[in-house]
Formats: sequence, C-alpha cells, structure tokens
Amino acid sequence: MSAGGVQGEATIRAIVEKGGKVIIFDINEERGQAIAKELAGSVFWPGATDVASEDSVLASIEKGVKGFGNISGVVNCGGIGMAQKIVFRNGEPQPLNIFEEVVRVNLIGTFNVCRLIAAHIIANIKASAEKEEDPGIIINVASIAYTEGQAGQSAYSASKGGVAGMTLPMARDLAGQIRVCTIAPGFFGTPMGNALKESILEKHMIHPYRMGKPSEFAHLACAIIENPMINGEIIRIDGAVRLGKL
Amino acid sequence: MSAGGVQGEATIRAIVEKGGKVIIFDINEERGQAIAKELAGSVFWPGATDVASEDSVLASIEKGVKGFGNISGVVNCGGIGMAQKIVFRNGEPQPLNIFEEVVRVNLIGTFNVCRLIAAHIIANIKASAEKEEDPGIIINVASIAYTEGQAGQSAYSASKGGVAGMTLPMARDLAGQIRVCTIAPGFFGTPMGNALKESILEKHMIHPYRMGKPSEFAHLACAIIENPMINGEIIRIDGAVRLGKL
Amino acid sequence: MSAGGVQGEATIRAIVEKGGKVIIFDINEERGQAIAKELAGSVFWPGATDVASEDSVLASIEKGVKGFGNISGVVNCGGIGMAQKIVFRNGEPQPLNIFEEVVRVNLIGTFNVCRLIAAHIIANIKASAEKEEDPGIIINVASIAYTEGQAGQSAYSASKGGVAGMTLPMARDLAGQIRVCTIAPGFFGTPMGNALKESILEKHMIHPYRMGKPSEFAHLACAIIENPMINGEIIRIDGAVRLGKL
Amino acid sequence: MSAGGVQGEATIRAIVEKGGKVIIFDINEERGQAIAKELAGSVFWPGATDVASEDSVLASIEKGVKGFGNISGVVNCGGIGMAQKIVFRNGEPQPLNIFEEVVRVNLIGTFNVCRLIAAHIIANIKASAEKEEDPGIIINVASIAYTEGQAGQSAYSASKGGVAGMTLPMARDLAGQIRVCTIAPGFFGTPMGNALKESILEKHMIHPYRMGKPSEFAHLACAIIENPMINGEIIRIDGAVRLGKL
Ligand SMILES: NC(=O)c1ccc[n+]([C@@H]2O[C@H](COP(=O)([O-])OP(=O)(O)OC[C@H]3O[C@@H](n4cnc5c(N)ncnc54)[C@H](O)[C@@H]3O)[C@@H](O)[C@H]2O)c1
Ligand SMILES: NC(=O)c1ccc[n+]([C@@H]2O[C@H](COP(=O)([O-])OP(=O)(O)OC[C@H]3O[C@@H](n4cnc5c(N)ncnc54)[C@H](O)[C@@H]3O)[C@@H](O)[C@H]2O)c1
Ligand SMILES: NC(=O)c1ccc[n+]([C@@H]2O[C@H](COP(=O)([O-])OP(=O)(O)OC[C@H]3O[C@@H](n4cnc5c(N)ncnc54)[C@H](O)[C@@H]3O)[C@@H](O)[C@H]2O)c1
Ligand SMILES: NC(=O)c1ccc[n+]([C@@H]2O[C@H](COP(=O)([O-])OP(=O)(O)OC[C@H]3O[C@@H](n4cnc5c(N)ncnc54)[C@H](O)[C@@H]3O)[C@@H](O)[C@H]2O)c1
Repeated sequence: MSAGGVQGEATIRAIVEKGGKVIIFDINEERGQAIAKELAGSVFWPGATDVASEDSVLASIEKGVKGFGNISGVVNCGGIGMAQKIVFRNGEPQPLNIFEEVVRVNLIGTFNVCRLIAAHIIANIKASAEKEEDPGIIINVASIAYTEGQAGQSAYSASKGGVAGMTLPMARDLAGQIRVCTIAPGFFGTPMGNALKESILEKHMIHPYRMGKPSEFAHLACAIIENPMINGEIIRIDGAVRLGKL
Repeated sequence: MSAGGVQGEATIRAIVEKGGKVIIFDINEERGQAIAKELAGSVFWPGATDVASEDSVLASIEKGVKGFGNISGVVNCGGIGMAQKIVFRNGEPQPLNIFEEVVRVNLIGTFNVCRLIAAHIIANIKASAEKEEDPGIIINVASIAYTEGQAGQSAYSASKGGVAGMTLPMARDLAGQIRVCTIAPGFFGTPMGNALKESILEKHMIHPYRMGKPSEFAHLACAIIENPMINGEIIRIDGAVRLGKL
Repeated sequence: MSAGGVQGEATIRAIVEKGGKVIIFDINEERGQAIAKELAGSVFWPGATDVASEDSVLASIEKGVKGFGNISGVVNCGGIGMAQKIVFRNGEPQPLNIFEEVVRVNLIGTFNVCRLIAAHIIANIKASAEKEEDPGIIINVASIAYTEGQAGQSAYSASKGGVAGMTLPMARDLAGQIRVCTIAPGFFGTPMGNALKESILEKHMIHPYRMGKPSEFAHLACAIIENPMINGEIIRIDGAVRLGKL
Repeated sequence: MSAGGVQGEATIRAIVEKGGKVIIFDINEERGQAIAKELAGSVFWPGATDVASEDSVLASIEKGVKGFGNISGVVNCGGIGMAQKIVFRNGEPQPLNIFEEVVRVNLIGTFNVCRLIAAHIIANIKASAEKEEDPGIIINVASIAYTEGQAGQSAYSASKGGVAGMTLPMARDLAGQIRVCTIAPGFFGTPMGNALKESILEKHMIHPYRMGKPSEFAHLACAIIENPMINGEIIRIDGAVRLGKL
C-alpha cells in the first residue's frame, strides 16, 4: 500500500512489477483513479484520502481491505512544500497557518497513517496462525531539508525533521511487528522537484548531474522493503548533494 | 527574555546575574509570578502566555516591551512531554490528539514565539541608528530524543525533531539579524526529568553519573548567547548519554 | 570486485548471482582461494593482498585485470576489530601501535584501495569511446561504531569515523566518474560479529531480534550498486540498534 | 594545558585570563617560546613537541609537570591541512604518504596526546585524597569537514572524521575521570583559515559574515571546560556554514 504522488506512483509501479498489490491513499482523485484503472487488479483506489484525517484514512483502509485483503505495509509519499521566510521583507512575521498546514499534512498526516496502518497490521499478526519473521513495513518520506533546510524552509524542514525524529521511536514501539524507515530525497523530477530553478540545480548537483528519477526513489523503497535488517534508519538519496548557502 | 520552566528559571537567573533583563513567557501563572517578584526590576511577568497562541504571545510581547523595553532574544524553554506507544497493548492506535497536542506546544509553539519575536527584533534593528554586529539571538530547546527517541516517544521525538530541523533554515532566513541555535538536553533534574525512574538513569548515565542541573543548561545557554560564531547548531548537553534500548 | 571477509563473501555471491564478475582482495589466502575455486569463471583470486600496501594492491589489480578485464567498482570489506580501553586498569596508556594498526588497515587500507581503483577506473573511462552515465562505484564499510562507539572502541571508531568522513569528499572528487557510499553495519553474524557475547545482543537488538546475515549486507550493497542516485551517503544496516551504555 | 596554533594561542590566553596555567605542546619552537615568554608564570614551554611521537609527548609532559605541577586537561589544537584530489588531473592517484601524514598528525597525534595525558590524569586522581566531581577534561579539534568535506579533502576529512568518531568511546572509557569533547570549527581567521580564497568565504558564510575569531573558539573551549554536563559531544562553531558544492 502506498500513498500517492509522482514518487508514490513510481513506487506503486515498482511494487506491482514485483508482484505486489497496492492501495492508493491520495487526496488527488484524478491521478489515483487513472493509475488504479491502468493497473487494475494490482492497484486499488478507495477514493480520495486526506492523510491527516482519522475518518478519511480509516474509511480508505476499510475499503482497501474489502477490495484487496489485509495490508502489510505503507510508503508515505504524500506531502506538500512551501517556501516562506520566517519574517517577510515587509517586516511581517510568516502567518502561523502556513506553518500549521505544512506540519498538519507532512508530519501529523504521516503519523496518522502510521498509527492506523500499524494497528491494522498488528491486529492481523495477532489473528494469524503462523508467525512471520518480518510481518510489516512502514516507509516514511522526509527530505534532505530535514537537516539542511534552505532559507524559506522552516516549515518544511520542521515537518520533515519531525518525520525523521519519529523514525527510531516508532521502530522501537513496533519492534517484532513492523519495521520503520525514512527516505530523505534530494532534488527529484516531480512537480515538486521541477519547480526548482535550473540555476539552483547547477549550484547543488554533483553526480549524477541531473534530478533524481522517481524510479530511483522506488528502487530504494523496494530495497528497504526486501531487506529485513534495515530498520530505524533515515536514508538520503540525493546524488551527494549537500544544501549549502543559496 | 526567556520562556519558563525549571530550566527556563535557571536560565533567567543566569541572565540576570550577568546583568540582563528577562520577560517570562509561561502558561504557569504561579511560578512565573514568584520569580518576577523575587527578581523584580530584572524580571517581568506579563501574565500567563500560551506559546502556541498568536494573540497570547503578541499580548505578552507588548506588555513586556512596555515594561522593560525592546527584546533582543529568546530562550524557548516551554514544552510538554508525553509517553505513549504508537499502538497500545490492547491494539488501539494512539489517539491522534495526543500527538497533535505535543506538536502544538513543542513545535508550533516554538515556531510561533520565534516568528513573532524575530519580527519584533528586526523592526528594532531597522529603527535603530547604529548597526550592531550581533543584534538578536533565538535559542530553542529540543531533546536528545530528537534523534534517539525511546519507545513511547514518537510524538515527543517528532516535535523535537521538528525543532532541530528548523534550526538551520531559520538561521539562514534571519542571517545578518538573529542567530538561531538549539540545545538538546539529556536527562535533567526538573519535574520532567525527575519523573524518570532511577533504574533508567542507571541504565543510561555515563559521566557525570547524575542528572543534569538546570544551572548547567543555563551555563550553556549563556555561552551560546555570548559567542557570535555559534549559529545554526544543535548542541547536546547530556553527559555522554546515548539512548539505547530500554 | 570485492575485498574479502564473511560479508565480502556474501557480497561476492550476490554479485555473481546477478551475473557480475569479482576479483578478491584479501590477506587470507585460504578463504579467498576456496571461493575462487568454487565460483571459477566468475571469481578471480590474484593471491593474498594487503589493502594497506601500495605494491600489493597494485599487483593484485594488475593480475585481476589480466585475468578478468577492467574493474568497475569495489566493495571494501576488509577490516580488523580491536577492543582496548584508552587507559588500562593498571593505569598504563593503550600502546600506540594498537591504534596505529587498526587505523592502518581500516582507514589507510580503505583509502589506498579507493585511490588505486579510482585511478584505474578513470583511466578506462578516458580510454573508452562511449560515455556511460554511471561508470564506477566504490562502497566502503564503516560500522555503527563510527558514531556510537562503545567503551574500548576508540581505535575502531576512529578508523570507521575516518571512513565515514571521507565518503563525501571522495564522492565530490570523483563526481562524473565514480559514486562513493559507505555501509555502516550493526551486529552481523560473522567471525567478528559472533565474538560478541549473547548478553550484549540481548541488550541491544530490537528488530529483527538476531544478528544481521551477510546476505542482508550483500543485498544492501547490490541495492546501492544498482541505484545511480545514491551517492555520498552513509547507510546503517543494524535492525534499529543504537549503541547505548554497556 | 593546550597544544599550539592560532586557535591554541587564543585558548591559552583565555585560560590564563581565567587564572589557569598552561603547558604548550607544539612543534613550532618560535611561537611557543614567544607566548611562554610573554605570559611567563602562567604558560610553560617544554620545548618542541611532536604530538604523534610517544617519546616527544612523554618528555614534554614530564618537563611540564616538573615546571608547573600536575595537568588536568588538554585542548588538542595541533593539526595540519592538505588539499589534494584523490586522483590528480593527470590520472595519477594521490600518493599514499600525503594521506598517511595528515592521518598521522591529526588523528594518531590527537589520540597519542589523549592516551598519555589521560593516563597522567588518572594516576593523579588515584593518588589524590579527595575525590573531585569533574577531575579532567580533553577537548579535541575536528573541523566541519569531518562530515561535509569538500573536494580535495579526503585526507583531512578522514583524519577529522576519526577524531569525531573516537569522541564518544573515549568519553565512555574515561567515564568518572575525564570528559571528552570535540570542537568542529568552520572557517577561522588563522594561517590555515586565511589561506581560503575570499570568493569561497562569500560562497559559504551566512552569519556572521566573516571568518571566526580565535577568541571565539577559545570562548567555546572555556564554556566546555566549565560545564561538567557537556561530555561526548561534537560542537560545530561555524556561523551556520554548511559546506555545499564548491
Ligand atoms: N520531489 C522532490 O524533489 C522531493 C524532495 C524531497 C522530498 N520530497 C518528498 O517526497 C514526497 C513525494 O513528493 P513528490 O515529489 O512525489 O511530489 P508530488 O506533489 O507529486 O506528490 C505529493 C502527493 O501528496 C498528495 N497529497 C498532498 N496533500 C495530501 C493530503 N492531505 N492527503 C493525501 N495526499 C496528499 C498529493 O496529491 C500528491 O499526489 C513528499 O513527501 C515530498 O515532500 C520530494
Ligand atoms: N528535563 C529534562 O530532562 C529535559 C530533557 C530534554 C528536553 N527537555 C526540554 O527542556 C524544556 C524545558 O523543560 P523543563 O525540564 O524545564 O520542564 P518544565 O516542565 O519545568 O518546564 C516546561 C515549562 O513549559 C511551560 N509550558 C507548558 N506548556 C506551555 C504553553 N502552552 N505555553 C507556555 N508555556 C508552557 C510549563 O508551564 C513549564 O513551566 C522543554 O522543552 C523540555 O522538552 C527537558
Ligand atoms: N561483523 C560485524 O558485526 C561488523 C559490524 C560492523 C562493521 N563490520 C565491518 O565489516 C567489514 C567486514 O567484516 P566481516 O564481518 O566480514 O569480518 P571478517 O573478519 O570476516 O572479514 C574481514 C576480512 O578482512 C580481511 N583483512 C584483514 N586485514 C586485511 C588486510 N590488511 N588486507 C586485506 N584483507 C584484510 C580478513 O582476511 C577478512 O577476510 C569490516 O570492515 C568490519 O569492520 C563488521
Ligand atoms: N583555521 C580554520 O579555519 C580551521 C577550521 C577547521 C578546523 N581547524 C583545526 O583547528 C586546529 C587549529 O588550527 P589553527 O587554525 O589554529 O591552525 P594553525 O596552523 O595556526 O595551528 C596548528 C598548530 O599545530 C601545530 N602542529 C602541526 N603539526 C604538529 C605536530 N606534529 N606536533 C605538534 N604540533 C603540530 C603547528 O605548529 C601549529 O601551531 C587544527 O586542528 C585545524 O585542523 C582549523
């Protein structure tokens, strides 16, 4: 199961290629439906989901389970960006609701999906007769801005720092049942990534000298899913970029 | 200017000892008033402040400035703890409002104070005739749980990971005007710290073999305030503790 | 191409399974020869190699290239461990030669192989007609002790901290030609890992509740080799272990 | 006691100002003697010391103790820089002896001083009647290049990554007796720092918009010496610089 977006889409395709089944949790009706249609039988669209809403996620889990059976993992790709200085040029402080909204979707939304899916997976583990060694997996998505946020990224870095920070305690809480990892992408060729100015890429990219491909993100997600020893870790995938001064 | 608590109180005392003046931002009426009374002339109590509320912080800044004049820095000590597994023993997921409340006070509250104080300081810088080299300072308080959160600390670690994550982008946003640093304490002898079981301390403490003293937190805060080259950094003060398995 | 050991052996097998060819660089004659015999045609044994010696590595590269053709990557698994307090119980300081030997093999040896292989790969890139996007790869092996070294691990942590520290500058030096990553394993079931007391594992392991398998190390190494966007990164594979107090 | 250099000199002056006494360990005869002459009574010059040599450091400790009495701490400022790509433009690999020399002075030299001073301090603790809470202190000096080394800094980053990596295990080894911390400076106005091109500073500096002053390094060193709760920590002092792409 995988929440949407361009990187989400690539992950869905990669999982389906390996024989997996995916339920999409995304607020964007159009894209989700299109993928589910194309990959019918392997991908399920439960209707638009707001990751930050208990009711919405619970409803989608229920529909998904009815459609496809029990869920054994999640890749939390949903997220929003926002670039605003903490104090504007005119001297006004950044309105609090910008910060609150980024934190609501990226951090609270991620945690909300984690706790509901985790409870679902654990219920299945308890119900199942045989004990698997590696029953469940949660992969959250931060950003390299979690530790090197640029000017204008206080809100985004706060939300992603939060995602990074809760990786280990969630892995500890869920030990024996669900692994928890976080991927921290650099610049990727997605709507979010493409909005970046060419000049900024030139300033930062090392090798490869291009933005990341969603398929590369998906490759890493699969490598984590397949490897039972990777747990509690935050992995950068960024082509050796470090976010220096703008 | 310094927001409350035991570590806050020690910081207030340390700043006052060095000749500074402090305005308290804390939701706890009793403690704040008591300190302000004891150290009258150096410490101002603007009434109870909720760090996460725009109105409340704005009102306290206004009263504080009327009472004591312009503010040049803040030590954001306000915070709450909370230990709850992401999925309870009975299989229920952690209610979302626990997570939301910890994030609201520790992360959104910290950012709220930062943005309002920053706008205030910048307004003063623009208004002032002479240009100081190091006009303002923000010190936020995370916890070593920002990176090594224990079982039960998802919410707390998320909030503190957020505080850590926004340190650098805030420092970048405020370059030329305000430095931004974060202190990450280990176990400290405060109401929050004392709640820890002796056995846990034995399990973790290295050297010194005791909890930290609020005066040591305050010493570090002053060392950061006084040193114009320390900026954008997260500093642990924990007696070499690393939070291993519980 | 891959330097030896148990984790090295698993990596060799994984690479060979994917159709790759491997030249072994290891000081241990017996083990290297045995694998090369078993997997003849895919694995080449150039004779014993001391990673820290220029002559030895150069000779093995030369023999390897004659036997198997040009080399396009290296997994630097060679390493030694050593646990000694910095000051012994009897008050004597740790002899300097212990520290020097660990640093010589783990840090200087790793760098020595990197620089010689890098020069070899770059020479081939220059000589070749067509330009590949991702021509070469270096994977070094640190340890989670690089950042959380236990009592007795000053020398080992120093050597592994050095390996971790040079990851990014090497990736920057070699941009456009060779990616450089580092794997930081936790407790693995190898001669080095098995020497660990059961009690210590109980103290640290979270999930999975066992030591890592060399095949899991190998899986991660392959995931890095295959993913052109992972560069300059240090990846822990440790089952969420954090090395707390002993 | 403090090993030399510009940052060392500032630290010496700061310690002497606070009433402390210092023995200089530096290979540079001229500078050491000059300071010792100027600050006679507070600063002792035992003759040139090579930090990487057992005999040399032992001899200087002995002379220092004879001159000034027992030593209770060290600030390990000695170090060398070196910028060389891992493979030169002409295709030649970097000669191994460059790497070896940087590692010898910065890493092995630092460890050598640590172990000999630690043994000396511990001997005094055992001999002394009363038990102090915080008997000894070691401060080593890394660089922000320990984690964000630039192109050309493999050797330097390896040596400084090693210094960073051994901080915690040394603190654990010496628990109850000696605290161990590391300072990681950014660009400082010293012979080493001044060699940096103005253009590079413009590219990196945030706030303050200048190189660090040795007195600021010294201020941080004193803050660590005075604060018994800071242990096992690596502290950056860099004006919020992050070393992005050159
Ligand atoms: N693209 C990059 O360069 C980059 C870099 C670093 C991190 N990331 C992170 O990677 C993740 C995926 O981003 P992407 O690049 O695929 O961008 P994207 O915009 O294509 O995907 C984000 C997806 O999140 C969905 N979404 C937004 N709000 C939602 C909500 N409340 N509930 C449910 N779904 C919601 C959107 O509909 C969208 O499909 C994000 O978390 C992003 O922060 C991206
Ligand atoms: N004590 C420890 O061991 C420890 C360890 C790591 C981090 N910390 C952090 O240090 C900081 C200070 O904690 P402390 O140990 O002094 O604990 P404390 O409980 O004494 O102080 C916290 C203060 O925050 C105030 N507060 C709570 N909610 C508020 C709100 N909404 N608005 C304004 N004020 C509010 C409380 O009234 C209290 O005075 C906290 O951020 C805490 O998370 C403490
Ligand atoms: N096993 C663990 O738990 C663990 C944990 C963290 C890191 N590591 C690291 O993983 C790497 C592989 O270790 P392993 O677990 O496979 O142990 P291992 O002892 O099986 O392998 C180490 C190999 O290095 C070789 N070697 C030693 N000195 C050499 C030299 N001078 N030149 C060439 N080869 C030399 C040995 O012959 C041996 O084959 C090492 O770098 C080790 O530090 C292992
Ligand atoms: N200046 C900067 O910008 C900067 C930045 C990051 C880190 N550092 C580190 O700070 C420390 C102090 O450097 P500095 O800026 O004062 O430079 P510096 O060159 O003034 O000081 C270095 C000192 O080390 C001494 N030294 C060199 N080799 C020695 C040996 N074998 N034995 C004994 N002494 C030896 C030199 O004589 C010199 O006095 C160094 O470790 C350096 O790596 C400096």
